[in-house]
Amino acid sequence: MSGRLRGKRVAILVEEGFDAREVADPMAALREEGAEALLVGASAAAHYRDRNGGPTVTADLAASAARVQDFDAIVIPGGFAPDRMRMRHAMVDLAAAAMAANKPVAAICRGAQVLISADAIRGRTLTCWPSIAVDVRNAGGLYVDRPVVRDGNLITSRKADDLPAFAAALIDALLAL
Amino acid sequence: MSGRLRGKRVAILVEEGFDAREVADPMAALREEGAEALLVGASAAAHYRDRNGGPTVTADLAASAARVQDFDAIVIPGGFAPDRMRMRHAMVDLAAAAMAANKPVAAICRGAQVLISADAIRGRTLTCWPSIAVDVRNAGGLYVDRPVVRDGNLITSRKADDLPAFAAALIDALLAL
Repeated sequence: MSGRLRGKRVAILVEEGFDAREVADPMAALREEGAEALLVGASAAAHYRDRNGGPTVTADLAASAARVQDFDAIVIPGGFAPDRMRMRHAMVDLAAAAMAANKPVAAICRGAQVLISADAIRGRTLTCWPSIAVDVRNAGGLYVDRPVVRDGNLITSRKADDLPAFAAALIDALLAL
Repeated sequence: MSGRLRGKRVAILVEEGFDAREVADPMAALREEGAEALLVGASAAAHYRDRNGGPTVTADLAASAARVQDFDAIVIPGGFAPDRMRMRHAMVDLAAAAMAANKPVAAICRGAQVLISADAIRGRTLTCWPSIAVDVRNAGGLYVDRPVVRDGNLITSRKADDLPAFAAALIDALLAL
């Protein structure tokens, strides 16, 4: 544990159907650097199952109680969880507020669906799971197919296999704050 | 079995993660009226699991072998299967061809994702599962929240609970051919 990110707090959004690696790997990478990583769900203490009905995680905090000023960055994991997150106003508002505040927002796989619902990607360059590339373009985003894309505060990746590059870009962005 | 739809052939698209009722109920309603209902998958004889990992169905025909002229209508069930269907060019092309030919196209839940990828909903009024309403609007569709919407050849519903109205609208459209 290097402690380079000590004092930094990061919200990792979670909902039913999340991709287990896309939650666990960024969390481990952040904690390894000394950051605090909190799971933000629709309700505090709610349990969420991953997309295979397997591992369960427990939310540390409800999205409605999460204030953007209390966090240095937001992570939006993928799987099918973003399909549910985007119907949670508090989650969409939190992501929108982080984008408006120019704080690092890191979205992987279908995580960009939340940013589409927040109308936060117009004119921004990003990547995502290919099934939603057309939705990203229709929302005004400039879709590219690369393992990780950083456009200002916005960090995006395509899939779990991109996680090492995704986590490294997130840590770089937090170190630069 | 009334036989009112004898001689009519309908393609029901299928992929991994389909909603079981949204495949089974339209199929049963069509067959009850004497229509032939075929499951069209990415590959012929491929097996697909539903969104809960439960019931498996087997494709009768590969999308690449399905010609729009051989069918009177297309059904696009929901669940998370449309997320995969929209990455299958042959499925998207089949849906696009049916829209272009003005044949009945019935999409329920997230089925509209396939029509977004086909760029087939500009100026059309439709409904869908609410998570993708913003994607429908961004693709030029006019989203409304009703159990079933019929706009010309396009029939859409929101969710499995809307299936009786959805199947009835599909049968009406086939009877009117």
